[in-house]
Amino acid sequence: MRILGIDCGTERTGYGVVDTDGRRHTIVVSGVIRTDTKASLDRRLLAIGRELREVVMVHVPQSCAIEEVFYSQNVKTALKLAHVRGVAMFIAAEAGIEVGEYSPLEVKTSVVGYGRAEKQQVQLMVKNLLSLDALQPEDASDALAVAICHATRTATGPRRMSAAR
Amino acid sequence: MRILGIDCGTERTGYGVVDTDGRRHTIVVSGVIRTDTKASLDRRLLAIGRELREVVMVHVPQSCAIEEVFYSQNVKTALKLAHVRGVAMFIAAEAGIEVGEYSPLEVKTSVVGYGRAEKQQVQLMVKNLLSLDALQPEDASDALAVAICHATRTATGPRRMSAAR
Repeated sequence: MRILGIDCGTERTGYGVVDTDGRRHTIVVSGVIRTDTKASLDRRLLAIGRELREVVMVHVPQSCAIEEVFYSQNVKTALKLAHVRGVAMFIAAEAGIEVGEYSPLEVKTSVVGYGRAEKQQVQLMVKNLLSLDALQPEDASDALAVAICHATRTATGPRRMSAAR
Repeated sequence: MRILGIDCGTERTGYGVVDTDGRRHTIVVSGVIRTDTKASLDRRLLAIGRELREVVMVHVPQSCAIEEVFYSQNVKTALKLAHVRGVAMFIAAEAGIEVGEYSPLEVKTSVVGYGRAEKQQVQLMVKNLLSLDALQPEDASDALAVAICHATRTATGPRRMSAAR
Protein backbone atom coordinates (compact mmCIF):
# COMPACT_ATOMS: atom_id res chain seq x y z
CA MET A 1 0.00 0.00 0.00
CA ARG A 2 1.12 3.54 -0.74
CA ILE A 3 0.58 6.09 2.03
CA LEU A 4 0.85 9.88 1.99
CA GLY A 5 1.74 11.42 5.36
CA ILE A 6 1.22 15.15 5.85
CA ASP A 7 2.63 17.40 8.57
CA CYS A 8 0.60 20.62 8.37
CA GLY A 9 1.86 24.14 8.99
CA THR A 10 1.17 27.58 7.50
CA GLU A 11 4.87 28.31 6.97
CA ARG A 12 6.10 24.80 6.25
CA THR A 13 4.01 21.75 5.38
CA GLY A 14 5.90 18.48 5.21
CA TYR A 15 4.81 15.54 3.08
CA GLY A 16 6.11 12.03 2.67
CA VAL A 17 4.98 9.11 0.53
CA VAL A 18 5.82 5.60 1.69
CA ASP A 19 5.25 2.15 0.18
CA THR A 20 4.57 -0.49 2.80
CA ASP A 21 3.63 -4.13 3.27
CA GLY A 22 2.77 -3.31 6.91
CA ARG A 23 6.21 -4.27 8.24
CA ARG A 24 8.77 -2.97 5.78
CA HIS A 25 8.49 0.57 4.50
CA THR A 26 10.18 2.21 1.50
CA ILE A 27 10.29 5.92 0.82
CA VAL A 28 8.84 7.13 -2.49
CA VAL A 29 9.22 10.86 -2.04
CA SER A 30 9.30 13.49 0.67
CA GLY A 31 9.51 17.24 0.78
CA VAL A 32 8.58 20.49 2.46
CA ILE A 33 6.16 23.05 1.02
CA ARG A 34 7.32 26.50 2.09
CA THR A 35 4.98 29.47 1.79
CA ASP A 36 5.73 33.16 1.45
CA THR A 37 5.68 34.58 5.00
CA LYS A 38 4.44 37.90 3.62
CA ALA A 39 1.52 36.32 1.75
CA SER A 40 -2.04 36.37 3.06
CA LEU A 41 -3.47 33.19 4.59
CA ASP A 42 -5.65 32.42 1.57
CA ARG A 43 -2.64 32.67 -0.77
CA ARG A 44 -0.65 30.37 1.51
CA LEU A 45 -3.49 27.84 1.60
CA LEU A 46 -3.63 27.99 -2.18
CA ALA A 47 0.10 27.26 -2.49
CA ILE A 48 -0.11 24.35 -0.02
CA GLY A 49 -3.25 22.86 -1.60
CA ARG A 50 -1.83 23.05 -5.11
CA GLU A 51 1.46 21.37 -4.18
CA LEU A 52 -0.28 18.63 -2.21
CA ARG A 53 -2.59 18.00 -5.15
CA GLU A 54 0.48 17.71 -7.38
CA VAL A 55 2.03 15.15 -5.02
CA VAL A 56 -1.24 13.17 -5.02
CA MET A 57 -1.50 13.27 -8.81
CA VAL A 58 2.12 12.27 -9.43
CA HIS A 59 2.54 9.59 -6.77
CA VAL A 60 -1.08 8.30 -6.45
CA PRO A 61 -1.20 7.30 -2.76
CA GLN A 62 -4.03 4.94 -1.72
CA SER A 63 -4.27 6.26 1.80
CA CYS A 64 -3.46 9.44 3.68
CA ALA A 65 -2.40 10.06 7.29
CA ILE A 66 -2.32 13.30 9.20
CA GLU A 67 -1.62 14.33 12.79
CA GLU A 68 -4.47 15.48 14.98
CA VAL A 69 -4.41 19.15 15.85
CA PHE A 70 -3.92 19.84 19.53
CA TYR A 71 -4.19 23.17 21.25
CA SER A 72 -2.61 22.81 24.66
CA GLN A 73 0.03 25.43 23.90
CA ASN A 74 -1.22 28.14 21.56
CA VAL A 75 -4.81 28.36 20.35
CA LYS A 76 -4.00 30.92 17.65
CA THR A 77 -1.33 28.66 16.13
CA ALA A 78 -3.66 25.66 16.38
CA LEU A 79 -6.39 27.59 14.55
CA LYS A 80 -4.02 28.55 11.70
CA LEU A 81 -2.89 24.95 11.47
CA ALA A 82 -6.50 23.75 11.34
CA HIS A 83 -7.00 25.85 8.18
CA VAL A 84 -4.09 24.05 6.50
CA ARG A 85 -5.38 20.74 7.80
CA GLY A 86 -8.79 21.45 6.28
CA VAL A 87 -7.19 22.06 2.88
CA ALA A 88 -5.03 18.90 3.16
CA MET A 89 -8.08 16.77 4.03
CA PHE A 90 -10.08 18.34 1.20
CA ILE A 91 -7.34 17.56 -1.35
CA ALA A 92 -7.14 13.95 -0.14
CA ALA A 93 -10.92 13.53 -0.09
CA GLU A 94 -11.23 15.04 -3.56
CA ALA A 95 -8.78 12.42 -4.84
CA GLY A 96 -10.90 9.69 -3.23
CA ILE A 97 -8.29 8.91 -0.56
CA GLU A 98 -9.38 8.15 3.00
CA VAL A 99 -7.75 10.14 5.77
CA GLY A 100 -6.46 8.54 8.97
CA GLU A 101 -5.83 10.76 11.98
CA TYR A 102 -3.29 10.10 14.71
CA SER A 103 -2.26 11.95 17.85
CA PRO A 104 1.39 13.03 18.24
CA LEU A 105 1.59 10.43 21.04
CA GLU A 106 0.45 7.64 18.71
CA VAL A 107 2.93 8.69 16.02
CA LYS A 108 5.89 8.82 18.40
CA THR A 109 4.93 5.55 20.08
CA SER A 110 4.61 3.87 16.70
CA VAL A 111 7.91 5.17 15.30
CA VAL A 112 10.18 5.47 18.35
CA GLY A 113 8.33 3.17 20.76
CA TYR A 114 8.05 6.00 23.26
CA GLY A 115 5.28 8.64 23.28
CA ARG A 116 7.41 11.43 24.72
CA ALA A 117 10.27 11.03 22.25
CA GLU A 118 12.19 14.14 21.15
CA LYS A 119 11.98 15.51 17.60
CA GLN A 120 15.53 14.31 16.91
CA GLN A 121 14.71 10.75 17.97
CA VAL A 122 11.79 10.73 15.51
CA GLN A 123 14.11 12.00 12.75
CA LEU A 124 16.66 9.30 13.51
CA MET A 125 14.10 6.48 13.64
CA VAL A 126 12.48 7.63 10.37
CA LYS A 127 15.95 7.53 8.77
CA ASN A 128 16.57 4.01 10.15
CA LEU A 129 13.11 2.57 9.39
CA LEU A 130 13.30 3.78 5.78
CA SER A 131 17.03 2.92 5.39
CA LEU A 132 17.82 6.48 4.31
CA ASP A 133 21.34 7.80 3.83
CA ALA A 134 20.70 11.01 5.75
CA LEU A 135 18.29 12.64 8.19
CA GLN A 136 15.30 14.27 6.53
CA PRO A 137 14.33 17.88 7.26
CA GLU A 138 12.15 18.01 10.38
CA ASP A 139 8.81 18.67 8.62
CA ALA A 140 9.40 15.99 5.98
CA SER A 141 10.50 13.58 8.71
CA ASP A 142 7.33 14.28 10.74
CA ALA A 143 5.23 13.62 7.63
CA LEU A 144 7.04 10.31 7.00
CA ALA A 145 6.56 9.42 10.70
CA VAL A 146 2.77 9.78 10.48
CA ALA A 147 2.79 7.75 7.25
CA ILE A 148 4.78 4.97 9.00
CA CYS A 149 2.37 5.12 11.97
CA HIS A 150 -0.56 4.69 9.58
CA ALA A 151 1.23 1.82 7.81
CA THR A 152 1.74 -0.02 11.11
CA ARG A 153 -1.81 0.60 12.34
CA THR A 154 -3.40 -0.42 9.07
CA ALA A 155 -1.44 -3.68 9.22
CA THR A 156 -2.25 -4.47 12.85
CA GLY A 157 -5.89 -3.51 13.14
CA PRO A 158 -8.66 -1.17 12.17
CA ARG A 159 -7.46 2.39 11.98
CA ARG A 160 -9.39 5.27 13.40
CA MET A 161 -10.53 7.42 10.52
CA SER A 162 -11.27 11.12 10.40
CA ALA A 163 -13.76 11.86 13.20
CA ALA A 164 -17.38 12.65 12.44
CA ARG A 165 -17.61 15.55 14.85
CA MET B 1 -19.22 44.46 -7.73
CA ARG B 2 -20.34 40.91 -6.97
CA ILE B 3 -19.48 39.58 -3.51
CA LEU B 4 -19.66 36.07 -2.08
CA GLY B 5 -20.19 35.90 1.68
CA ILE B 6 -19.56 32.63 3.48
CA ASP B 7 -20.66 31.59 6.98
CA CYS B 8 -18.60 28.50 7.80
CA GLY B 9 -19.72 25.50 9.82
CA THR B 10 -19.11 21.75 9.68
CA GLU B 11 -22.84 20.93 9.82
CA ARG B 12 -24.20 23.93 7.94
CA THR B 13 -22.25 26.39 5.81
CA GLY B 14 -24.21 29.39 4.60
CA TYR B 15 -23.40 31.30 1.44
CA GLY B 16 -24.79 34.41 -0.16
CA VAL B 17 -23.95 36.30 -3.32
CA VAL B 18 -24.73 40.01 -3.50
CA ASP B 19 -24.38 42.63 -6.23
CA THR B 20 -23.49 46.04 -4.88
CA ASP B 21 -22.59 49.58 -5.90
CA GLY B 22 -21.37 50.16 -2.33
CA ARG B 23 -24.67 51.60 -1.12
CA ARG B 24 -27.44 49.53 -2.65
CA HIS B 25 -27.22 45.77 -2.54
CA THR B 26 -29.15 43.16 -4.51
CA ILE B 27 -29.26 39.46 -3.74
CA VAL B 28 -28.11 37.08 -6.48
CA VAL B 29 -28.38 33.79 -4.62
CA SER B 30 -28.14 32.38 -1.13
CA GLY B 31 -28.25 28.94 0.40
CA VAL B 32 -27.10 26.56 3.08
CA ILE B 33 -24.79 23.60 2.48
CA ARG B 34 -25.78 20.82 4.87
CA THR B 35 -23.41 17.92 5.49
CA ASP B 36 -24.13 14.39 6.64
CA THR B 37 -23.70 14.40 10.43
CA LYS B 38 -22.56 10.78 10.28
CA ALA B 39 -19.85 11.49 7.69
CA SER B 40 -16.17 11.89 8.58
CA LEU B 41 -14.68 15.38 8.66
CA ASP B 42 -12.81 14.92 5.37
CA ARG B 43 -16.04 13.86 3.59
CA ARG B 44 -17.84 16.87 5.01
CA LEU B 45 -15.05 19.21 3.88
CA LEU B 46 -15.27 17.65 0.44
CA ALA B 47 -19.03 18.27 0.25
CA ILE B 48 -18.64 21.89 1.41
CA GLY B 49 -15.70 22.62 -0.91
CA ARG B 50 -17.45 21.15 -3.93
CA GLU B 51 -20.65 23.10 -3.39
CA LEU B 52 -18.79 26.36 -2.78
CA ARG B 53 -16.79 25.79 -5.95
CA GLU B 54 -20.07 25.28 -7.81
CA VAL B 55 -21.42 28.58 -6.46
CA VAL B 56 -18.22 30.35 -7.52
CA MET B 57 -18.32 28.83 -11.01
CA VAL B 58 -22.00 29.59 -11.59
CA HIS B 59 -22.21 33.09 -10.10
CA VAL B 60 -18.62 34.33 -10.65
CA PRO B 61 -18.14 36.64 -7.65
CA GLN B 62 -15.28 39.17 -7.85
CA SER B 63 -14.66 39.27 -4.14
CA CYS B 64 -15.22 37.02 -1.11
CA ALA B 65 -15.91 37.82 2.54
CA ILE B 66 -15.74 35.54 5.52
CA GLU B 67 -16.08 35.93 9.28
CA GLU B 68 -13.00 35.64 11.45
CA VAL B 69 -12.92 32.57 13.65
CA PHE B 70 -13.03 33.32 17.34
CA TYR B 71 -12.54 30.88 20.17
CA SER B 72 -13.77 32.52 23.33
CA GLN B 73 -16.42 29.86 23.88
CA ASN B 74 -15.36 26.45 22.61
CA VAL B 75 -11.90 25.73 21.22
CA LYS B 76 -12.92 22.36 19.78
CA THR B 77 -15.76 23.93 17.79
CA ALA B 78 -13.48 26.76 16.66
CA LEU B 79 -10.90 24.23 15.43
CA LYS B 80 -13.52 22.33 13.40
CA LEU B 81 -14.75 25.59 11.94
CA ALA B 82 -11.17 26.58 11.02
CA HIS B 83 -10.95 23.44 8.85
CA VAL B 84 -14.04 24.54 6.91
CA ARG B 85 -12.71 28.08 6.74
CA GLY B 86 -9.44 26.79 5.27
CA VAL B 87 -11.35 24.97 2.52
CA ALA B 88 -13.53 28.04 1.80
CA MET B 89 -10.45 30.28 1.50
CA PHE B 90 -8.71 27.72 -0.71
CA ILE B 91 -11.70 27.54 -3.08
CA ALA B 92 -11.85 31.35 -3.31
CA ALA B 93 -8.09 31.69 -3.79
CA GLU B 94 -8.09 28.98 -6.44
CA ALA B 95 -10.71 30.97 -8.36
CA GLY B 96 -8.49 34.06 -8.13
CA ILE B 97 -10.83 35.83 -5.70
CA GLU B 98 -9.42 37.86 -2.81
CA VAL B 99 -10.74 37.09 0.64
CA GLY B 100 -11.74 39.80 3.13
CA GLU B 101 -12.03 38.86 6.79
CA TYR B 102 -14.31 40.54 9.31
CA SER B 103 -14.98 40.03 13.00
CA PRO B 104 -18.56 39.24 14.13
CA LEU B 105 -18.54 42.71 15.75
CA GLU B 106 -17.69 44.40 12.43
CA VAL B 107 -20.39 42.46 10.59
CA LYS B 108 -23.10 43.29 13.14
CA THR B 109 -22.06 46.93 13.35
CA SER B 110 -22.09 47.21 9.59
CA VAL B 111 -25.48 45.55 9.11
CA VAL B 112 -27.44 46.46 12.25
CA GLY B 113 -25.40 49.46 13.42
CA TYR B 114 -24.83 47.77 16.77
CA GLY B 115 -22.01 45.27 17.50
CA ARG B 116 -23.94 43.26 20.08
CA ALA B 117 -27.02 42.74 17.93
CA GLU B 118 -29.00 39.51 18.29
CA LYS B 119 -29.10 36.90 15.50
CA GLN B 120 -32.74 37.82 14.76
CA GLN B 121 -31.87 41.50 14.33
CA VAL B 122 -29.22 40.54 11.77
CA GLN B 123 -31.77 38.38 9.93
CA LEU B 124 -34.29 41.22 9.88
CA MET B 125 -31.78 43.83 8.67
CA VAL B 126 -30.48 41.50 5.94
CA LYS B 127 -34.09 41.07 4.76
CA ASN B 128 -34.63 44.84 4.78
CA LEU B 129 -31.30 45.85 3.20
CA LEU B 130 -31.81 43.38 0.35
CA SER B 131 -35.58 44.10 0.04
CA LEU B 132 -36.39 40.40 0.46
CA ASP B 133 -39.91 39.06 0.85
CA ALA B 134 -39.04 36.80 3.76
CA LEU B 135 -36.37 36.16 6.38
CA GLN B 136 -33.52 33.97 5.16
CA PRO B 137 -32.41 30.88 7.09
CA GLU B 138 -29.93 31.89 9.80
CA ASP B 139 -26.78 30.57 8.10
CA ALA B 140 -27.67 32.06 4.72
CA SER B 141 -28.55 35.34 6.43
CA ASP B 142 -25.18 35.40 8.26
CA ALA B 143 -23.40 34.80 4.94
CA LEU B 144 -25.34 37.66 3.29
CA ALA B 145 -24.52 39.87 6.31
CA VAL B 146 -20.75 39.38 5.89
CA ALA B 147 -21.13 40.05 2.14
CA ILE B 148 -22.99 43.31 2.91
CA CYS B 149 -20.31 44.25 5.47
CA HIS B 150 -17.63 43.70 2.81
CA ALA B 151 -19.65 45.74 0.28
CA THR B 152 -19.87 48.68 2.68
CA ARG B 153 -16.21 48.49 3.69
CA THR B 154 -14.96 48.19 0.14
CA ALA B 155 -16.97 51.30 -0.75
CA THR B 156 -15.80 53.38 2.20
CA GLY B 157 -12.13 52.50 2.48
CA PRO B 158 -9.42 49.93 2.16
CA ARG B 159 -10.57 46.59 3.44
CA ARG B 160 -8.46 44.42 5.65
CA MET B 161 -7.56 41.31 3.71
CA SER B 162 -6.78 37.81 4.91
CA ALA B 163 -4.05 38.11 7.55
CA ALA B 164 -0.50 37.04 6.79
CA ARG B 165 0.00 35.18 10.06
